[in-house]
Amino acid sequence: MNRLVAGPDIEPPHLRDALHHALLSPGKRVRPLLLLMIAARDSGASEAALDAGIAVEMVHTASLVLDDLPSMDNAETRRKRPTAHVLFGEATAILVAIALLNRAFGLLAELGAGHEIRTELGRILSNSIGWNGLVSGQAHDIAGNQGAERADAERVNWLKTGALFVAAAEMGAVLGGCDEADRARIVGFANYLGQAFQTADDLIDISGDPEAAGKDVGKDHGKQNVVSIVGAKRARDACREYLTAALDELGRTGIPQGPIFALMEQHFGAMMPGNR
Amino acid sequence: MNRLVAGPDIEPPHLRDALHHALLSPGKRVRPLLLLMIAARDSGASEAALDAGIAVEMVHTASLVLDDLPSMDNAETRRKRPTAHVLFGEATAILVAIALLNRAFGLLAELGAGHEIRTELGRILSNSIGWNGLVSGQAHDIAGNQGAERADAERVNWLKTGALFVAAAEMGAVLGGCDEADRARIVGFANYLGQAFQTADDLIDISGDPEAAGKDVGKDHGKQNVVSIVGAKRARDACREYLTAALDELGRTGIPQGPIFALMEQHFGAMMPGNR
Repeated sequence: MNRLVAGPDIEPPHLRDALHHALLSPGKRVRPLLLLMIAARDSGASEAALDAGIAVEMVHTASLVLDDLPSMDNAETRRKRPTAHVLFGEATAILVAIALLNRAFGLLAELGAGHEIRTELGRILSNSIGWNGLVSGQAHDIAGNQGAERADAERVNWLKTGALFVAAAEMGAVLGGCDEADRARIVGFANYLGQAFQTADDLIDISGDPEAAGKDVGKDHGKQNVVSIVGAKRARDACREYLTAALDELGRTGIPQGPIFALMEQHFGAMMPGNR
Repeated sequence: MNRLVAGPDIEPPHLRDALHHALLSPGKRVRPLLLLMIAARDSGASEAALDAGIAVEMVHTASLVLDDLPSMDNAETRRKRPTAHVLFGEATAILVAIALLNRAFGLLAELGAGHEIRTELGRILSNSIGWNGLVSGQAHDIAGNQGAERADAERVNWLKTGALFVAAAEMGAVLGGCDEADRARIVGFANYLGQAFQTADDLIDISGDPEAAGKDVGKDHGKQNVVSIVGAKRARDACREYLTAALDELGRTGIPQGPIFALMEQHFGAMMPGNR
């Protein structure tokens, strides 16, 4: 990842330092790993899949930088470090997000793959970010008026988390040369996985342990989410249901499940189906 | 432009209203017009050129929304109306910028043109925005430490204004099927035009007439630019020199100059070469 943001040509140095801080922080890289594991289906991971994974991580990082801003969640810790705006100021943090989002599309345009694949990946990524995805999810989150039913919370989870999981997985499917049927199942898998991820995140948030979270907790206080609507116990059950459904979809594809299962187990621990 | 942001599927309504406010405000649309006039070189304006022009305008609009934020220029008026953050709040204004930038790349990925052209346009646009273009220019602007020579100011002008002019013109050249030599001249033309634009803008800023500007003026107080470095009179001379050089480059291409000349005359008035 370093080679993509470490160029001596990034000016001014303050912007470069802020970019490094945001992108090279110790994240789990779940989305790019997912993309790579799906893309590696038949021919091993390619340089193109690596770059596409980095593009997805750039978008994810941009969304975190924005989410933490004073005008949004006003969070001071992320990935166990001070947030970008705390260290570099609000204006620079916003520019970092813009630069990362922009560079993600630049990477896809320059990808070592056919032009048709590149435009397809750009289309998928753009669809997951805009007013049918991340941006809309964040706007709902800010407005706090998404409704009080579990289905409402799941809809917002889809927008703010599921959409980028789906994009990462679908981009992997395109790069891995999956057929239409497998691609649809992978989208289904990622959709459930995104729900599980967001619900697990909301469970950590109410646990109130910033050490486990690596970020500010309790920032979602008063926001409607699956946990606040159905309670922690039933939310854990829901998370397990999502994961079961995700694995069910994945099992119907030709994608090797071992690495993806291990990635999920690492993240969800005792909530993984079969584990108690 | 309306069809691209007026869909009933933009949720929540607050976000949709903010997007409409920003994008459908009475701008001059200079960048998309430039793209269209260059692309129409041999076959008339195409749907693809129109969409590419809208993509460029979306990026420009996003840059204005961000530029006006409290953490940046803290401006309250733009295009003779209240700025996005004044009407819709800071968080929503930031999301509008992200949504527009993202949709610009989505539009290019879906453009009614060959896949190779689409990836080329995406690459050009991305290069003009990121840490070698708009974002870097804005970061220099914030830092205010770009140096006190005219060449320093011109470098920042290139980043914050020239880069997107060059992108618009180069995208037009790609869509118009220009050869490499004409493409290079068009890049040169747009580079000079961008310098002229930014210098004219800085001249309006010191004139202190918000009515003429349609936006807050005096926000650049204390910032180094060509006007503050060489004074208003010599800046007007510099602007005329840029325009002369721009027209010289344009004249060496096969692009019909009439419409572009008229567009420039409308904008620069008495500063156009030949006019007194």
